[in-house]
Amino acid sequence: MEKTLAQRLAGEAVGTAFLLIAIVGSGIMAEGLAGQNAAAALLANSTVVGAALIVLILIFAPVSGAHFNPAVTLAFLMRKDIGPRDAGLYVAAQIVGAVTGVFASHAMFGEPILQIGTTAREGGGQLLGELIATFGLLATIFGCLAGRKDAIPYAVGLYIFAAIWFTSSTCFANPAVTIARALTDTYTAIRPIDAPAFILAEVAAAAVATLAAPFLFGAPAESEETAEAKEAAPPRRAA
Amino acid sequence: MEKTLAQRLAGEAVGTAFLLIAIVGSGIMAEGLAGQNAAAALLANSTVVGAALIVLILIFAPVSGAHFNPAVTLAFLMRKDIGPRDAGLYVAAQIVGAVTGVFASHAMFGEPILQIGTTAREGGGQLLGELIATFGLLATIFGCLAGRKDAIPYAVGLYIFAAIWFTSSTCFANPAVTIARALTDTYTAIRPIDAPAFILAEVAAAAVATLAAPFLFGAPAESEETAEAKEAAPPRRAA
Amino acid sequence: MEKTLAQRLAGEAVGTAFLLIAIVGSGIMAEGLAGQNAAAALLANSTVVGAALIVLILIFAPVSGAHFNPAVTLAFLMRKDIGPRDAGLYVAAQIVGAVTGVFASHAMFGEPILQIGTTAREGGGQLLGELIATFGLLATIFGCLAGRKDAIPYAVGLYIFAAIWFTSSTCFANPAVTIARALTDTYTAIRPIDAPAFILAEVAAAAVATLAAPFLFGAPAESEETAEAKEAAPPRRAA
Amino acid sequence: MEKTLAQRLAGEAVGTAFLLIAIVGSGIMAEGLAGQNAAAALLANSTVVGAALIVLILIFAPVSGAHFNPAVTLAFLMRKDIGPRDAGLYVAAQIVGAVTGVFASHAMFGEPILQIGTTAREGGGQLLGELIATFGLLATIFGCLAGRKDAIPYAVGLYIFAAIWFTSSTCFANPAVTIARALTDTYTAIRPIDAPAFILAEVAAAAVATLAAPFLFGAPAESEETAEAKEAAPPRRAA
Repeated sequence: MEKTLAQRLAGEAVGTAFLLIAIVGSGIMAEGLAGQNAAAALLANSTVVGAALIVLILIFAPVSGAHFNPAVTLAFLMRKDIGPRDAGLYVAAQIVGAVTGVFASHAMFGEPILQIGTTAREGGGQLLGELIATFGLLATIFGCLAGRKDAIPYAVGLYIFAAIWFTSSTCFANPAVTIARALTDTYTAIRPIDAPAFILAEVAAAAVATLAAPFLFGAPAESEETAEAKEAAPPRRAA
Repeated sequence: MEKTLAQRLAGEAVGTAFLLIAIVGSGIMAEGLAGQNAAAALLANSTVVGAALIVLILIFAPVSGAHFNPAVTLAFLMRKDIGPRDAGLYVAAQIVGAVTGVFASHAMFGEPILQIGTTAREGGGQLLGELIATFGLLATIFGCLAGRKDAIPYAVGLYIFAAIWFTSSTCFANPAVTIARALTDTYTAIRPIDAPAFILAEVAAAAVATLAAPFLFGAPAESEETAEAKEAAPPRRAA
Repeated sequence: MEKTLAQRLAGEAVGTAFLLIAIVGSGIMAEGLAGQNAAAALLANSTVVGAALIVLILIFAPVSGAHFNPAVTLAFLMRKDIGPRDAGLYVAAQIVGAVTGVFASHAMFGEPILQIGTTAREGGGQLLGELIATFGLLATIFGCLAGRKDAIPYAVGLYIFAAIWFTSSTCFANPAVTIARALTDTYTAIRPIDAPAFILAEVAAAAVATLAAPFLFGAPAESEETAEAKEAAPPRRAA
Repeated sequence: MEKTLAQRLAGEAVGTAFLLIAIVGSGIMAEGLAGQNAAAALLANSTVVGAALIVLILIFAPVSGAHFNPAVTLAFLMRKDIGPRDAGLYVAAQIVGAVTGVFASHAMFGEPILQIGTTAREGGGQLLGELIATFGLLATIFGCLAGRKDAIPYAVGLYIFAAIWFTSSTCFANPAVTIARALTDTYTAIRPIDAPAFILAEVAAAAVATLAAPFLFGAPAESEETAEAKEAAPPRRAA
């Protein structure tokens, strides 16, 4: 049952590719159909991203842990659930998958493959949005890991759907997603110049959430129950 | 596994803060995008609040019981599942968290931090709405506690989503939420002068539901099964 | 744990009342907000009804079996899961609850309490719609009872949401709901003159589905597993 | 508990008929109500199809395996979970059911029963869409079979909802559905001349996904756990 490193990296790459197809592809579709109706476009885009995340985590959690997100991989690195070498490879696989997903979306919808985002996303309000969005994502993961592990796919999908609406930045909360969305100029684009601050906020919030989690949800100690839970999901403790 | 009082109060405060961010933040976003399309705005706002509640209860139920609501804490106080001192501290943590969530929403969206609601919400129809909304919320909690405890997060989230649409008051059903929403003048605002009647209706409905629950769902006696269930969720019996 | 007849009838009445509040109340709210946007109105109304059903069945299934519907009670009568006297009382409780729910919706939204529906719903296409809608509802219940009993609340709620859209009659599928909706002249109304044909179609489809179910899903025999399942949900075998 | 071949074929036919009623019926309703609002129409259509799939798989998985799709049956044939004779009968039942569902939808909505689609769906982008859509569907099924078998109904329903938006072809991903939708000229139509390329893409993607699955998710070997899982769902291993 133990997955090989190659399988785990393939899981991260394929999963993150589909995540970006869900984000960018549904954005193109939604904007095309919604016309001036900006609320309908975001309603479609946000529900699709949430639903896709539920499915992708259901599928790939037993394969790779279903991080799909360097901020999540960083958090598990800080908790020593993954080693530094594997964490680096995970992040590389996530970025390769994310960019591939953007290219595939462009190809499907007859868009130029190579694009550069021109949508400005900047300012302290949006960075606060990314801080809150990413802190909440990590709290969702850590909170469910402590109590309702089986609900993680649903919790993460519902959280991201909600956070797209309740944060001013529309919840990127993922450095690989941020990089990849700088390579599209469709509905979900971000200017490359705005990406580094987003990524910094995401990484900072992930670190803070990881440090705060033991107080809120209890220490991720190697208790018997934890060990058993890890047994069921070997990738998380890998390294 | 037993959580300390500090952890439980932190759970109530952080959870209620995120609940208000979901309510107020998504309201600002929805109104901004929907323009004249009032149905689309409420559809976004209501689905986001329901989804956020599911996630927050999944995360914080094992920590603090995930009340986030003085009317719920009152109900558990009446059932002696929580003591009067802890109940008072819970309510304080909920109000502090709720107001903080409103401030954070304002900061994210570049709004003035301090606001006073000017949306009139009054009249017998709306108070009947709050009575029905809050009675239904407590019935949802007590009914699931008696039979489908694991489904509580989903049941409460789906209930609040639905009740936002089927009650004339758009289902506040929560005194801490009512107080906090008097401190915003955005989509989800309420005038401070209208808040006391809402809160009175919420508290009255919670008390009636708590008295009616044993007839509808059976007494919350200390049977073996109940004891075991409480073991799994220690915060509820705390105090 | 065995519920008394009074508890079970209260469960049917209260549950059906809330079901009608969800249907009629959200219809008034949706039509009021959506203006000319008929798709947005039905999207809100249908998702609310589906969500409310999930919650109501989660809560009341362990109390009364959560029929809320004379066609469902008829089906369980045909399967001898409920006796004729209790079935008659169930239907009475459902109708009383349904009408009360309509009155409560009118009171909340400042509408005249007593109304008569003027929305024409007639013709062979719509009756075929009711036949398909009700057959599908019973198939959902019997199919899940045979295999995925715990999923019934979710299956029924999702089914009704979908059938509101995929049937030409917008899926009444419930004689108590049909009677009650003849007593409102808001979004979800039906003319009293159109109600009998709807009810006839619903009852006929329920009977056909009950006869067809053993072939499709296996006989509801008193096997060990069935007995155990019934133990967990005593109301269904009551009478 | 073992189902007869007749029961299994009836399950495939009835299930696929309801699937097409959900697709075509809700498409007619949505287009009729949404007017120019194309995003609202697809939002209704896609959520209804996803919800209906969840329900249909919950009901019919224990009966026939709930394929409803020749591409899925092909995949299980390649894995030797179903024999060639039964696979052929499954596909026939799916097509008969699908076409019946289209006719029933037309009858309900007062449309001419026999129609030919005139909606052009062609080009490399859309075929890439079908490849991605069908690959993802099979990955969802195989991934959940390996780890979260009970979640398959929810995963497939959520996946199809999402893929309708994130693929340029609006995710047919099913040869029986493609054939049947060539026999309607309503919202969800496809020109018969465009159908063969769609079907070819669907079949090719299903084959590729089946070959790739053992690498991503582990071999479907006859381990003790697999045997037990099959015990719980006998139809899949039938032949």
